[in-house]
Amino acid sequence: MRFNLPKTPAVHVKGKAFRLADVDPDATKPFTRKHLDKEAAQPRLQALRRRLSELQELLYAEHQRSLLIVFQAMDTGGKDGAMENLFTGVNPAGVQVATFKAPSTEELNHDFLWRIHAQTPKRGHIGVFNRSHYEDVLITRVHGLIDEKTCKQRYEDINNFEALLTHNGTRILKFFLHISKEEQAQRLQARLDDPAKNWKFDPNDLKERARWDDYQQAYEDAVRHCSPNHAPWFVVPANHKWARDLALTEIVVAALEEMDPQPPKVAFDVTKQVIE
Amino acid sequence: MRFNLPKTPAVHVKGKAFRLADVDPDATKPFTRKHLDKEAAQPRLQALRRRLSELQELLYAEHQRSLLIVFQAMDTGGKDGAMENLFTGVNPAGVQVATFKAPSTEELNHDFLWRIHAQTPKRGHIGVFNRSHYEDVLITRVHGLIDEKTCKQRYEDINNFEALLTHNGTRILKFFLHISKEEQAQRLQARLDDPAKNWKFDPNDLKERARWDDYQQAYEDAVRHCSPNHAPWFVVPANHKWARDLALTEIVVAALEEMDPQPPKVAFDVTKQVIE
Repeated sequence: MRFNLPKTPAVHVKGKAFRLADVDPDATKPFTRKHLDKEAAQPRLQALRRRLSELQELLYAEHQRSLLIVFQAMDTGGKDGAMENLFTGVNPAGVQVATFKAPSTEELNHDFLWRIHAQTPKRGHIGVFNRSHYEDVLITRVHGLIDEKTCKQRYEDINNFEALLTHNGTRILKFFLHISKEEQAQRLQARLDDPAKNWKFDPNDLKERARWDDYQQAYEDAVRHCSPNHAPWFVVPANHKWARDLALTEIVVAALEEMDPQPPKVAFDVTKQVIE
Repeated sequence: MRFNLPKTPAVHVKGKAFRLADVDPDATKPFTRKHLDKEAAQPRLQALRRRLSELQELLYAEHQRSLLIVFQAMDTGGKDGAMENLFTGVNPAGVQVATFKAPSTEELNHDFLWRIHAQTPKRGHIGVFNRSHYEDVLITRVHGLIDEKTCKQRYEDINNFEALLTHNGTRILKFFLHISKEEQAQRLQARLDDPAKNWKFDPNDLKERARWDDYQQAYEDAVRHCSPNHAPWFVVPANHKWARDLALTEIVVAALEEMDPQPPKVAFDVTKQVIE
């Protein structure tokens, strides 16, 4: 990544040495609790949001490049909340969200990147993936639907695919929202306790939870193998939503600042336009 | 390519040493004129067509893999005629033809492979590309719309993309129908002379014709850089339509024979089904 990474609890993955177990899902440093304080922290978050809105408009006006933000997490990891928080105040006309659920029959009739490629953001837009092509090396691997050889081939296919997008002017940021197993237990329980949240609960989530360690391993391997400079993974401690959201906003704004989108030069002489 | 290449006038490109000027567009050997003879040659072409029809049905029944056939040629090179001839007698439900013309605004808002990927054949199908992603290293390069660095990057993106399709069980055959400049002159003139063919003529074709040598160079470079074993280019001498068509049919049938598609085993006991 060619931008100055802001100081946040998020960990920028740099290749094979990365260990997921080294990242504390409870981490909030270098943020402090004062970030939660209206006086001290809200001004920062509000300023970041205003800037994000401006940068999105410039990206749209420039109409040359795009930004792709990938969200992955364990169940209850907070993808929906994080996306909502991140894009508060951003013009939705410039943001394309794609949610990837279990593939359809038609999608399974093609390679695993077919449905993903179709949803990549067009020039001038911010694309957001709610789950992504990484599911094809996570859930499929944990459930033994693909062998290790296929998994390695997919890491390579993913790296090549993300390189293609990069060549075309798409900046890619990938976020793994990292919660602890205990935190997930609390959040699942909350979905059972609150009738208004019952719809978010799926008994199958418990089966996936039983494979927690396998998923952590699959995530670790995926981010290790697919973290080239042009498409970095950030592991974002996500037990504390305020720290998660502030970290995400800091990183996205910093990436857009580095892209420095410019509105196109107009072809007419501004001073000679007379509006009567 | 892992199949025994049948003996035809077509040249299988094997990397950087290939020179387009070494391929004679008039070549018909090892075919002889007797292939044109009803007694001697029609039985061979008819037998190949019957076999192609059977193999397509088996590929469809197996529903695991697919075949992608790419056609490229200079104007009047004979892509339409070749496709028509090749698929005579094949069930059109199992064949998906995609014709790539100048990209739309929406298509230009994405990377050059975006519209191509969307049209790749699904499992069990034969996909046919009438022009293809190769236009993005041919016409764009000849017209100076991309620089040499971008062109090389695209060769790499194309190789990676074709590897992805191969990993997914798509067999790829690429055919450049190679005519001479003199043959093109005759075919263009025929379009002017015959009122029923006038609609096929476009005055812009003459502008492209004026860049003949640049196109030959662009083709040579593209097939040199993008001929991995899993996605070979065949340069097919195409001044003589009968030899072109026989060569194409021989190669496609041989590739499908090597794929050897198998119908799925049925889950019921055939001997115990009673139809009353």
